Amino acid sequence: MTTPENKNEAELSTTRDVIDLPRGFRFGGLACGIKDSGKADLSLIVSDAPVVAAGVYTANQVVAAPVTWCRAVTPSARVRAVITNSGNANACTGKRGDEDTESMATCVADSVGCKSSEVLVMSTGIIGHVLPIDKITEGIKQLAGETAATDQAFQDSADAILTTDVQRKLVSTKIAIGDHVYSIAAMAKGAGMIAPNMATMLAVVLTDAPLAADDAQSMLSRVADKSFNRVSVDGHTSTNDTLLMLASGEGDGLVGDDLNQFESVVLNQCIELAKQLVADGEGAKHVLALRVSGAESDADATEIARTVAASPLVKTAITGGDPNWGRIVSAAGYAKARVDPSKISLTICGRTIYRDGAPLHFDASELSATMKASGEVDADLIVGTGEGKASFWASDLTTEYVTFNSEYTT
Amino acid sequence: MTTPENKNEAELSTTRDVIDLPRGFRFGGLACGIKDSGKADLSLIVSDAPVVAAGVYTANQVVAAPVTWCRAVTPSARVRAVITNSGNANACTGKRGDEDTESMATCVADSVGCKSSEVLVMSTGIIGHVLPIDKITEGIKQLAGETAATDQAFQDSADAILTTDVQRKLVSTKIAIGDHVYSIAAMAKGAGMIAPNMATMLAVVLTDAPLAADDAQSMLSRVADKSFNRVSVDGHTSTNDTLLMLASGEGDGLVGDDLNQFESVVLNQCIELAKQLVADGEGAKHVLALRVSGAESDADATEIARTVAASPLVKTAITGGDPNWGRIVSAAGYAKARVDPSKISLTICGRTIYRDGAPLHFDASELSATMKASGEVDADLIVGTGEGKASFWASDLTTEYVTFNSEYTT
Repeated sequence: MTTPENKNEAELSTTRDVIDLPRGFRFGGLACGIKDSGKADLSLIVSDAPVVAAGVYTANQVVAAPVTWCRAVTPSARVRAVITNSGNANACTGKRGDEDTESMATCVADSVGCKSSEVLVMSTGIIGHVLPIDKITEGIKQLAGETAATDQAFQDSADAILTTDVQRKLVSTKIAIGDHVYSIAAMAKGAGMIAPNMATMLAVVLTDAPLAADDAQSMLSRVADKSFNRVSVDGHTSTNDTLLMLASGEGDGLVGDDLNQFESVVLNQCIELAKQLVADGEGAKHVLALRVSGAESDADATEIARTVAASPLVKTAITGGDPNWGRIVSAAGYAKARVDPSKISLTICGRTIYRDGAPLHFDASELSATMKASGEVDADLIVGTGEGKASFWASDLTTEYVTFNSEYTT
Repeated sequence: MTTPENKNEAELSTTRDVIDLPRGFRFGGLACGIKDSGKADLSLIVSDAPVVAAGVYTANQVVAAPVTWCRAVTPSARVRAVITNSGNANACTGKRGDEDTESMATCVADSVGCKSSEVLVMSTGIIGHVLPIDKITEGIKQLAGETAATDQAFQDSADAILTTDVQRKLVSTKIAIGDHVYSIAAMAKGAGMIAPNMATMLAVVLTDAPLAADDAQSMLSRVADKSFNRVSVDGHTSTNDTLLMLASGEGDGLVGDDLNQFESVVLNQCIELAKQLVADGEGAKHVLALRVSGAESDADATEIARTVAASPLVKTAITGGDPNWGRIVSAAGYAKARVDPSKISLTICGRTIYRDGAPLHFDASELSATMKASGEVDADLIVGTGEGKASFWASDLTTEYVTFNSEYTT
């Protein structure tokens, strides 16, 4: 099991005294009995009025019932609630799974006074088990009466979506645009924690800024591509991955430069959450922060970064604090994107150790000590074929990951 | 470190009292001082007369100098020798690397009396270090005078290409075609053992059957695609991977059904060697033998199998003897090939545990015990979109792999 000692707690701590809560939402979380541990497993976000909602979902062809449900709802300008259960992914559960998702939406709709098609549903946890739907609907009825627009309620809601995460994952900011100050607050649960039979990264971004539904959807797709799609724990894409954004602001929405400014804040928040997921990855001791540049396109740079970050040999080198350029360069070489071997250069923690296809002399012991002491190991890889670039974050691979995931669980 | 206790020795043992040696070749191996351990590190295969040679090489864009050399030579009808050093991959060594490869070929050519362009060169070992070329040329001169057409010399040659492999890897067979009996013997070194900075699977198939150069080349490409390209230890494609075939037989070569019969024997041999590589993979305790069927094409089935076999969650489930269908089905779902979630079925060790997109009841404890006791765990995955099929072999992922590869080595 992962214990807090495995973690760089200074970097992971995200709980603050004051959360910049967006106006227009209420929150709540409780334990309805899905988890044997008795921990919170049901989370509700309710808006006072219909809000704009956008969603980005897993690329897996095998998708959980709540993903199918949400895909049909978003983008929308009329969403009223997000209900999330943890402890059970409601994935690979057939027709019963769809019925249970609809029951959750209907129960929330009845409780808050809206249509079921105005409720978004997320689930995370074990695959292939049917939901204890009676416990969940009982929990929803209780929870709907307890929501509040407070920091504590927001934290309760964020805690209830976690599965085996060690750390709560949330972030909030205020942004001034023209005469207005808007809040953006987001919560997530770990893709990092891909535990036995557990699946899913989930994240919800909430704001009181005014956004048009189409703007929100296109923004969220771009943001996902540069944040949650740029992290890797073990490369296993879950059946449940869901990123939602809800905007409660009234009016026609932000436009032009204001919209761009807003998007950059959302992007930074999602990158921060994505990095939290990686840092809290099962057994993770270091984060590899990889920047690839000089590729033929940004997409090529991303492909190269993903290939390098997924290599078990690269991951174990980071685990061991080994400045092993051979593993990184050879991984770049088998990415499905063109590199120029004679122009590849690599810098780790500020030391250039490989330049234009040839190794440089460097103090390996000193660099290794620096890598071992760094919670986040920076690596800059230049591949020499163009101007494309990408950032990517990956956890290392430790014996703790293997031990945890090879324990007999059925 | 991997110890023999990790292995299923009964399955791995391939040493026999009598090897079916193909006529027309002589062999030798010795320690020339590349390895600090003093183990054999120089292997020579010499033919009495020019032979047909074909080659299949790594798909990595970053390739070692000897790969560039061999690509320029094969296919050929005039090869006289294969020189291989272990302990140093001669990869990422720039112009000096090319010069050293040529020096090796020239030294062999001078010793056996042929042109350097009639000599194939392979290297395996650490990346980014220049060869101790003087030790190697001295070794070649000695070795060229000691080659013999004996079982012992063949084994010496096979041993000298190993790096951190635990087991010698060789296989040999006789085949009767028409009035003739031909021998096929092959040796390999582990892709399994992707150790710190070590790279490469190498394999050489030798026969006294008559083959045309073009036939040999196309046959070898097909065979590689169904054998060495169907195994995975850690998914990290090396800079040095090389598969060679040499045919010493005289005449115009086999044709028609005889050629097909011959190819099927070569394929079986290469599958056997590929499985030996996986079984001897770093830290490997089980082999996953995965059959995917019902895909849109054989290529799609291979892509799905490769994706499932590369998932750390699947690999650790095999390590733990966990019949975790959720991990396998969800990995198939994110392969870049179409699956029909409602028609996916999975059978492990003969027990069907998932059928047409829904889990079946099964005795998980009994199946787990069977998986743990099996050196090779069989899994049949049906994906429901067509008639394509593929077989694939992968090692599991153990704490020993992580420990070995995260040790500080620079």
